[in-house]
Amino acid sequence: MTTIELRSDNTAAVVPEILAAVVAANHGTALAYGGDELTERLESVVRDVFEHPTARVFPVTSGTAANALSLSALCPPWGSVVCHESAHILNSECASTSLLGGGAAIRGIAGDDFRITPESLQDALDGIRWGDPHHSQPRVLSFTQPTDMGTIYSLDDIASVVAVGKTRSLHVHIDGARLANALVALDCSAADLTWRSGVDVLSLGATKNGALSAEAIVAFDERAAEELVYRTKRAGHVTSKMRFQSAQLIAYLGDRTWLRTAANANARMADLAAGLSKLGVEFANRPDVNMLFPIVDDNVADQLEAAGLLFYRMGRGTIRLVTSWQTTEEDIEGALAAFEAALGA
Amino acid sequence: MTTIELRSDNTAAVVPEILAAVVAANHGTALAYGGDELTERLESVVRDVFEHPTARVFPVTSGTAANALSLSALCPPWGSVVCHESAHILNSECASTSLLGGGAAIRGIAGDDFRITPESLQDALDGIRWGDPHHSQPRVLSFTQPTDMGTIYSLDDIASVVAVGKTRSLHVHIDGARLANALVALDCSAADLTWRSGVDVLSLGATKNGALSAEAIVAFDERAAEELVYRTKRAGHVTSKMRFQSAQLIAYLGDRTWLRTAANANARMADLAAGLSKLGVEFANRPDVNMLFPIVDDNVADQLEAAGLLFYRMGRGTIRLVTSWQTTEEDIEGALAAFEAALGA
Amino acid sequence: MTTIELRSDNTAAVVPEILAAVVAANHGTALAYGGDELTERLESVVRDVFEHPTARVFPVTSGTAANALSLSALCPPWGSVVCHESAHILNSECASTSLLGGGAAIRGIAGDDFRITPESLQDALDGIRWGDPHHSQPRVLSFTQPTDMGTIYSLDDIASVVAVGKTRSLHVHIDGARLANALVALDCSAADLTWRSGVDVLSLGATKNGALSAEAIVAFDERAAEELVYRTKRAGHVTSKMRFQSAQLIAYLGDRTWLRTAANANARMADLAAGLSKLGVEFANRPDVNMLFPIVDDNVADQLEAAGLLFYRMGRGTIRLVTSWQTTEEDIEGALAAFEAALGA
Amino acid sequence: MTTIELRSDNTAAVVPEILAAVVAANHGTALAYGGDELTERLESVVRDVFEHPTARVFPVTSGTAANALSLSALCPPWGSVVCHESAHILNSECASTSLLGGGAAIRGIAGDDFRITPESLQDALDGIRWGDPHHSQPRVLSFTQPTDMGTIYSLDDIASVVAVGKTRSLHVHIDGARLANALVALDCSAADLTWRSGVDVLSLGATKNGALSAEAIVAFDERAAEELVYRTKRAGHVTSKMRFQSAQLIAYLGDRTWLRTAANANARMADLAAGLSKLGVEFANRPDVNMLFPIVDDNVADQLEAAGLLFYRMGRGTIRLVTSWQTTEEDIEGALAAFEAALGA
Repeated sequence: MTTIELRSDNTAAVVPEILAAVVAANHGTALAYGGDELTERLESVVRDVFEHPTARVFPVTSGTAANALSLSALCPPWGSVVCHESAHILNSECASTSLLGGGAAIRGIAGDDFRITPESLQDALDGIRWGDPHHSQPRVLSFTQPTDMGTIYSLDDIASVVAVGKTRSLHVHIDGARLANALVALDCSAADLTWRSGVDVLSLGATKNGALSAEAIVAFDERAAEELVYRTKRAGHVTSKMRFQSAQLIAYLGDRTWLRTAANANARMADLAAGLSKLGVEFANRPDVNMLFPIVDDNVADQLEAAGLLFYRMGRGTIRLVTSWQTTEEDIEGALAAFEAALGA
Repeated sequence: MTTIELRSDNTAAVVPEILAAVVAANHGTALAYGGDELTERLESVVRDVFEHPTARVFPVTSGTAANALSLSALCPPWGSVVCHESAHILNSECASTSLLGGGAAIRGIAGDDFRITPESLQDALDGIRWGDPHHSQPRVLSFTQPTDMGTIYSLDDIASVVAVGKTRSLHVHIDGARLANALVALDCSAADLTWRSGVDVLSLGATKNGALSAEAIVAFDERAAEELVYRTKRAGHVTSKMRFQSAQLIAYLGDRTWLRTAANANARMADLAAGLSKLGVEFANRPDVNMLFPIVDDNVADQLEAAGLLFYRMGRGTIRLVTSWQTTEEDIEGALAAFEAALGA
Repeated sequence: MTTIELRSDNTAAVVPEILAAVVAANHGTALAYGGDELTERLESVVRDVFEHPTARVFPVTSGTAANALSLSALCPPWGSVVCHESAHILNSECASTSLLGGGAAIRGIAGDDFRITPESLQDALDGIRWGDPHHSQPRVLSFTQPTDMGTIYSLDDIASVVAVGKTRSLHVHIDGARLANALVALDCSAADLTWRSGVDVLSLGATKNGALSAEAIVAFDERAAEELVYRTKRAGHVTSKMRFQSAQLIAYLGDRTWLRTAANANARMADLAAGLSKLGVEFANRPDVNMLFPIVDDNVADQLEAAGLLFYRMGRGTIRLVTSWQTTEEDIEGALAAFEAALGA
Repeated sequence: MTTIELRSDNTAAVVPEILAAVVAANHGTALAYGGDELTERLESVVRDVFEHPTARVFPVTSGTAANALSLSALCPPWGSVVCHESAHILNSECASTSLLGGGAAIRGIAGDDFRITPESLQDALDGIRWGDPHHSQPRVLSFTQPTDMGTIYSLDDIASVVAVGKTRSLHVHIDGARLANALVALDCSAADLTWRSGVDVLSLGATKNGALSAEAIVAFDERAAEELVYRTKRAGHVTSKMRFQSAQLIAYLGDRTWLRTAANANARMADLAAGLSKLGVEFANRPDVNMLFPIVDDNVADQLEAAGLLFYRMGRGTIRLVTSWQTTEEDIEGALAAFEAALGA
């Protein structure tokens, strides 16, 4: 049976350009642990792409590492990281931030569309006994952009939430596991979405969007960057042959690869969502990027599965569909046909 | 100027067979986080190679991660890991084991040839106030095999040290960042060198010996393996597209690749050491595998450097030379010529 | 101005019998760190009072220490502790459990009357992806008994929640900072409320109820007890002159002192609550023990303050009143008079 | 049989003045967690005694807590604390500093008379690869004053070691578990021995020298003090009825109590050492304060024990004798008589 892959963007293969860069890097010898030329070049690529003259980049090999290390460099052990209650750092990283952050707390707060709002943040901050050591002190605001439910913050959304956070001097982090998908959807610059919006440190995803084994921490804040030199190493997140991580990231960020691959994922999802809407399917989310959460009966889900559609069941009548750089128009047509058949039955 | 690379084996490129395996794995989609077929196959490859029916393998991306995670699964936070005072885990991992092990202590002990001896271990254990909570309680014995100074333990050496450790029920770990080089030198089976010698968990190096970005934890102990499922994840050491790590490790372990590449490194070093001995150079170590620490005057070192030899200065008149899977006979001839010229000058 | 103390039971002085025991212990010399006769005797007192032949007791000097250490011995670092969302361990200990528990997570769940219910626990456990390392795995169920809002669990309440927890093999902990107040209110034995209800480790409060600087961990579970020998020490929670901590705890538990002092606190609160009810005051909690949360206008609170009543404002029109072993009938009469005046104004 | 207590100064009872202060504090109610008048007064007492206008004091209940918390506020998790290889923080605190310091390393270095020397520190610092994240970066210099072997640093000794440390911007900590004994021996001011010598944070011992359950962290460095507000709390080291800790410390520091009690301990030890020297006994240490390590045959030790002398055997023919505020001239006469008899036999 032919299957149509809609489980996750991290099931996708590697973008040819990225794999080619890895292959091209495989000659001669190079200093380990980032002492190589490609890693040096990566830094200037990052500074160009993010239009930031002193940004520092730390290639790592998982999004959890990027998040937990970023947050550990922004949050003291007695502090807390404020995020949305649906955030990946809270629900899907096995308390990695508490481990690498020396016991720092993560606090999930409410907000429509799976997003922190100025009101929900204000409410959370109002409830804190500031300076009282019985209470973990909020020190970092962490956005998931896009959210784990496929919604995005506009630049204005971010600005208004950051403005509230700044009244309490919160540092700002973005979990950008799918940042490129948000960039494409917002059609804004990487600089606007990050440091110009007040972001101190970014977890820059690449693997879900086509890399082999590369994520990166991009630090706009100098003090955090200095800590990350040590924090990445002692967490085992400085690869020895880093040139092969850097090669991936250069190919990813260079020549607009990341935006092209994300654009495909977003476009395919837009097609899928439009098609499903026409079929009368309702969604648990607003599909701003490449994720959709249709609400379907269990028997419909069973039939989709039988028809070869690969997806996740989220419980309570919701399924998850995710497109990737690899998803084709034929995949979407096939998925829509499967839905039509299942719904008609 | 042509250079001859002898700084470290981790400056080497990727073995063609391993890179080919990565490229070959790049098709279709596959479940993330190790839910793929290659990772499943890796487990059976590991069980075959190590002749152990229930061994578990956890691909990670750095040797520090492999070590610190392995040790965290063997040592309680109030325990200590006993290793040689020259061990990598003690000197070159920025206390990663203390971070990931919840504050566990590492205790370096003496021993000739950079190796723990039964006597030095007995002496250390005799000095412990067992059961007294003022004292970190030794719980793990960690061998570096080969050592960071390029010496190896014979199977008998290991047996006699483990026997002492077992009188105090110490768990046993091997930091095998260069395990293949030891295997080749000892001409013994992977099983004999690990679980048949009493080893509970192994840090299996691959990157220094030709992989792209793959190391692995091999757990022979079931309880440790169960912990590692969680410990690897929360330290950010479960890569999303794990199939590409697993593909490397399959290619590495399969078809004796790892032994072939290590054999080259060892053989080239044997040539180099023999040649230098003839030139009257003395060494700070016994070059059992692919590392040599010649004792040379600073001006000799300066000339070697000027001649294009790439190596590290270790202080106190010692330099470090390391061969790899990539080192050629011509490299060694060139290095010997450079030495001859420098010494003659 | 005469004041009436109703801020907290931990503002109270030391019960004369307990201070007398400290004074009586001050002679001769005694081995430090618990090697003294009084600490040995304390163990048998605890075993008698809790009717448990192998219970172990660890005197500590704060309730936060008792909780975080207890939980660290029951929960692996990748696990989570499930408690009510109003629990002290979640809200008022600055993530101490995450620090001492190696990054373990605390998860607050809902439940009426500030108590976990079988339904809310079942709901939380149903939402877990068991065995999936992305998710902190619930391992411990922690009751606050009485709760921080002064309500209690009956033995049946505990049994029904524990029954749900046992379907997932959760360990059970009680934060008993005010355990004596619950014991008095329930009129049950210490054994019934703890190990016979399935409790593995108890944080036994004493300071709020009249001790000088003594809390204790009581471990019914042997494995946890063995860990606590080391965990208490390395967290700095083994006092050197432990005999003076043990003397307090012997005096506290012996001769029913703890029940007498708690009975006074509960009885005074019952009088206060009855009196305030007559005055038409409504409460945010059900005053099962010695804590009451009246809902009053800010100007009423202002007048109460002006009249010399000492209490805490909890925000949103609620104040907190707590009685202690020291609270007298005159205090309550005075408080009621102050309320009557303020409400009449 | 009458015994003579020479095991440890922490076996001693509480100095009457200190216990009286505790009893005197036992009236009325007072805010918990240091919000009381006595704790406020303690701060000004500390500032007076240490002649430092902004010193902050944090009462804790164990020396291990004082040390590990102090160091955690001075050393980043990737840093290391340099101390003598005989230091209590390295050998007798079960890696508490690694626990509370987020995995920070402790590095013991050599030095005659159990003291760090400028040379041994320089040598250790010279061996560091500064800025290389593979290596724990030394950030704190910790003196044990007096050392665990009863020797002291003169002000000049400290100055010369600190001068070396300052070349690498090391923070400075004193483990002053027996600081008063050193002060008496040196006949210098508390200010001279601490902040005027460059000390940032002091672990101020009181229990061994006569308090009931009180140690303190004295922070001269403002940033460390700010961290300690949170670090003490989340480690469970903020006692609820802190007034009783503060009362002890006020009585201890006020009216020169601490110096008087330490003077007795030192004087009794001087008598003992002089007497033993006359008997021809040799010592493993220079008894600068109240600790002596005579070298005696096992059968001599057996006879001393049989004669009622209480002491510790340290292995290798050495025993440990410690005097306290409680030791009398009769105790010393008795001890000398026991030695004379044992040696004569």
